[in-house]
Amino acid sequence: MTARLLSGKTIADAIKTEVAAEIRHLKTTHGFRPCLVAIRVGDDPASAVYVGSKVKASEEIGIISEHRHLSTDTSHDELLAIVRELNERGGVDGILVQLPLPPQIRSGEILEAIDPQKAVDGFHPINVGHLAQGEKALVPCTPAGIIEILKRSDIPIAGKHAVIVGRSNIVGKPMAMLLLQENATVTICHSRTVDLPSITRQADILVAAIGRAGFVKAEHIREGATVIDVGINNLSDIDLARQMFTGEDLERRLATIEKRGFTLVGDVNPKDAMKLAANFTPVPGGVGLLTVAMLMKNTVEAAKMRRGI
Amino acid sequence: MTARLLSGKTIADAIKTEVAAEIRHLKTTHGFRPCLVAIRVGDDPASAVYVGSKVKASEEIGIISEHRHLSTDTSHDELLAIVRELNERGGVDGILVQLPLPPQIRSGEILEAIDPQKAVDGFHPINVGHLAQGEKALVPCTPAGIIEILKRSDIPIAGKHAVIVGRSNIVGKPMAMLLLQENATVTICHSRTVDLPSITRQADILVAAIGRAGFVKAEHIREGATVIDVGINNLSDIDLARQMFTGEDLERRLATIEKRGFTLVGDVNPKDAMKLAANFTPVPGGVGLLTVAMLMKNTVEAAKMRRGI
Repeated sequence: MTARLLSGKTIADAIKTEVAAEIRHLKTTHGFRPCLVAIRVGDDPASAVYVGSKVKASEEIGIISEHRHLSTDTSHDELLAIVRELNERGGVDGILVQLPLPPQIRSGEILEAIDPQKAVDGFHPINVGHLAQGEKALVPCTPAGIIEILKRSDIPIAGKHAVIVGRSNIVGKPMAMLLLQENATVTICHSRTVDLPSITRQADILVAAIGRAGFVKAEHIREGATVIDVGINNLSDIDLARQMFTGEDLERRLATIEKRGFTLVGDVNPKDAMKLAANFTPVPGGVGLLTVAMLMKNTVEAAKMRRGI
Repeated sequence: MTARLLSGKTIADAIKTEVAAEIRHLKTTHGFRPCLVAIRVGDDPASAVYVGSKVKASEEIGIISEHRHLSTDTSHDELLAIVRELNERGGVDGILVQLPLPPQIRSGEILEAIDPQKAVDGFHPINVGHLAQGEKALVPCTPAGIIEILKRSDIPIAGKHAVIVGRSNIVGKPMAMLLLQENATVTICHSRTVDLPSITRQADILVAAIGRAGFVKAEHIREGATVIDVGINNLSDIDLARQMFTGEDLERRLATIEKRGFTLVGDVNPKDAMKLAANFTPVPGGVGLLTVAMLMKNTVEAAKMRRGI
């Protein structure tokens, strides 16, 4: 058996096309385009890449986007004042504060200060609460994207056993709530779980969000499962690369490690997943691409909710 | 094997004694006693009993309590105005709106209008969100009480597999978050779960919160498990009573059914649980008593948080 690869690109592109059409429709019928403001503080290189890709995607599909880049020594109160000003500005539909923030800034307070109706990352506690209670809410982008992957790939969720490895606020916990809403039986595992393989091997849908390269292996995967790999790790360990890849793929990965010092891999061993699973999301090219697409979708949702459309 | 019965009364009394001592201490050192206002709309007899028991418990342990009983035809806006006035009153620490509310009142909006810092039932979405994110929050009373039962009975949680049957906002979902915080591996089952017994039989800790008399039976229970029965059902079915009880207990239950038309039972078959489980909470006399005790504890917590103590 060889797993079907679920292409994040194809699904993300389909969502972006739909969202772009909706934005054109909003422009025609209601005379506005949604506006997203992304705030980045300091010079973290990964943050620069993430914000850059969000701004680029926004512009491609017709969202008005604004990128505020603040210096590393921005104070907590300065950032808070900017958030409050954006809350007040009627034309702003989405506010995104890229994490991590410098140590002098209390991240939790900043995220909570964002108008919940504009908190398009889905991390505002009131949105988290609404999600848990099954109310309408802006939902964290990565787990929302995983639901889209499953649905658009015709993978049934209702009545299936979904096992999530990892209990983060960004992926694991909101993922549990969304899968529960779709009527899956849901198990959440983590670092303190005893005999992890015996639990993950029960999964019809296995979501790996741990942050450890190739951690989920043959022993964890039930034959015929759908395996969703949320991890993004820099791998420089050549031995581990040899365990995770074969053939041309391995050659390419080893060349990348030699050239850049690392290669981008997920939390799942792709060699094992391709052999055992029925469906599998690759890294790169899988879940990651959905996150930005869902941020676009959330921004349009927020614009419509705020404006009562 | 005969299960150890976990007495809700003993544990609830211990908590109430601790809370009463804390209230005396607050009075001595800070010059105030916490104040809880319970609002009841209409003449639902169960609501009258629940509010009555909360007011009585408050007074016993030294909480100032106020019971507002409004007529069935109270409008949404009238109730909203009362909630807002209580939000403003500095001396009020806890506001409790007893559910269900009459149909002309939009319950969700009312609960959300309560100042989150005074929402001592733990149902305000911002408290639900904080709980999910692992932040300090006022936590729903029944699941919080179950954690107290487990801890005070020296039943380990970390690394154990907890299975929750039922996914309500009041019990199932907050229970999952609390058990996860205590480092259990957590599975949430519900009406759409396929082959429920095969999952519940994996449980070290089994929480039944479904609302169906005697639904959890021998086939669901792993030998040596801790079984927590959250259900409160009126049973009038004599055949089912015969399956659930034996000996003197059965005689008493049958006499009650004959006299009152029903007897109060949980979601678990106690005959089976007593035989298979290591620990078991009875109904009545188990989890139910904790709910009121935890409401008292939440009111004191709210008073301290609000006043920065």
